[in-house]
Amino acid sequence: MKRIAIIGAGNVGLAAAKAVMLSPDMELCGFIRREAKRVSGFLGIPAAKSVFDLPKKPDGAIICLPSRLVEPVEKELLEAGIYTVDSFDIHEELPAMRRRLSAAAEKGGVSAVIGAGWDPGLDSVIRTLMLAAVPQGITYTNFGPGMSLGHSAAAREAFGVADAISFTLPVGFGKHRRKIYAVLKEGENNAAVEHGILSDGYFEHDECSVEFTDSVKPLFNTSHGVLIERSGNSAGNGSQWINFRMAIDNPSLTGQIMVSAMRACFLQKPGAYFMPEIPPCDFCGEGWEKVI
Amino acid sequence: MKRIAIIGAGNVGLAAAKAVMLSPDMELCGFIRREAKRVSGFLGIPAAKSVFDLPKKPDGAIICLPSRLVEPVEKELLEAGIYTVDSFDIHEELPAMRRRLSAAAEKGGVSAVIGAGWDPGLDSVIRTLMLAAVPQGITYTNFGPGMSLGHSAAAREAFGVADAISFTLPVGFGKHRRKIYAVLKEGENNAAVEHGILSDGYFEHDECSVEFTDSVKPLFNTSHGVLIERSGNSAGNGSQWINFRMAIDNPSLTGQIMVSAMRACFLQKPGAYFMPEIPPCDFCGEGWEKVI
Repeated sequence: MKRIAIIGAGNVGLAAAKAVMLSPDMELCGFIRREAKRVSGFLGIPAAKSVFDLPKKPDGAIICLPSRLVEPVEKELLEAGIYTVDSFDIHEELPAMRRRLSAAAEKGGVSAVIGAGWDPGLDSVIRTLMLAAVPQGITYTNFGPGMSLGHSAAAREAFGVADAISFTLPVGFGKHRRKIYAVLKEGENNAAVEHGILSDGYFEHDECSVEFTDSVKPLFNTSHGVLIERSGNSAGNGSQWINFRMAIDNPSLTGQIMVSAMRACFLQKPGAYFMPEIPPCDFCGEGWEKVI
Repeated sequence: MKRIAIIGAGNVGLAAAKAVMLSPDMELCGFIRREAKRVSGFLGIPAAKSVFDLPKKPDGAIICLPSRLVEPVEKELLEAGIYTVDSFDIHEELPAMRRRLSAAAEKGGVSAVIGAGWDPGLDSVIRTLMLAAVPQGITYTNFGPGMSLGHSAAAREAFGVADAISFTLPVGFGKHRRKIYAVLKEGENNAAVEHGILSDGYFEHDECSVEFTDSVKPLFNTSHGVLIERSGNSAGNGSQWINFRMAIDNPSLTGQIMVSAMRACFLQKPGAYFMPEIPPCDFCGEGWEKVI
């Protein structure tokens, strides 16, 4: 039975906590929050500002913070000998982050699974398998329609924004539009805030628009989806077509994948890993052989 | 550059040969056939009755024989220090076969990837990932419509059968019908031959019917497909739905997956493995990190 702490108590943190509680091989030993108050009465789980303040040192920590806040927290945990999982979602920064966190993990004699969410994460594994099965071809990943947790967090952190959510709308063949609904802080200027949101690296790849509104609460929902398509050649034959489609509650899926990645993390040699580097059976508990 | 021999020159063997020739990290060094004649002039590849008769000992062998013939061949190769891949497809016999071949692989200091085709194989990995992402739920695997290579081979080997093909027809939610088209050997009796075909273990799980015909050639085609569906709970939330669908040329996909499994095989510690036990990135050559 592994003791697991959850860092952050947002949508994903709460889902990860629930997934830990439903896992027979794990015990939820604490929430880590900046405010260090109890997260929720019904959970009855200790909360602290740091894992080192918890009654017992956790074996593993699931880091459910906005991507920009992940790395220093994760480095400290790894160096202290605590296994970690994050769902850092800025694809192009992952290889360099892995090198840095691998060094920390080796120092602490533990492992990390990084980019372990939905995409990067499960989708990365699917794309890797598609590449193995159909080595010559093109893969299209189409997200949504749905609210992006990472992009919403980035928009909320922009200057002058009181609240915001960002929706991802698929245009087809890997192209997307993003629609950001934002609530201005009092006295701020629409145009300046819009420019601030859109200049974040999260938003520079896609066609984006911002709409200001009084409240984003009526728009808030966690349903999402993806369609990954690949067509191409296997063994030189061009009639191959594979697709992978999900319609999901986003924080539940992300939290669950992080918990499954935590299980696998304990089985890896010291270092930091992407999900496609891990044997899929390691994500599951006993019984996976039944699906062979 | 690894030297790869192909054992068997049927549909899958020829596709595997083509996939090896298209792989920059592998060299096709020979075909092994019972008849030991040259397989095909245009391939220009040495052929022999045994890998030990080839000009150079191969590093790996891809065994493209009917499932019932695989194990003794594979055991001999492993004990002789040759890495192997098979696409043995009788699911319920795989765990015991793995134990026996693991012993042979450890004796030879090499590895085997077994059940490395489409299903078992790629589909097994997908089902394992679905289990990791949606741990509470039900998975349905729906095959076809398409010709089953394994079932067709089993039907052809039945007493009194001159030629046969078996089609898999999806009925929905994991149920299938099988339709076998068979050509009688001269002087044989329809009813006796039908009974012989249907009493094979391959056919006992599904509703099956046999139709006798003069020739199966006009019906022969290699297109196939699968739909794997799972719905259930992630982190206790019941709104999750995942599906994986393929429309493919069956021997090309099977041959390609075996070649990708061969690549991974060289990277594993001695032993016999199912595909879900192997890091997906190992199936791909350089460049898989681009799909993270």
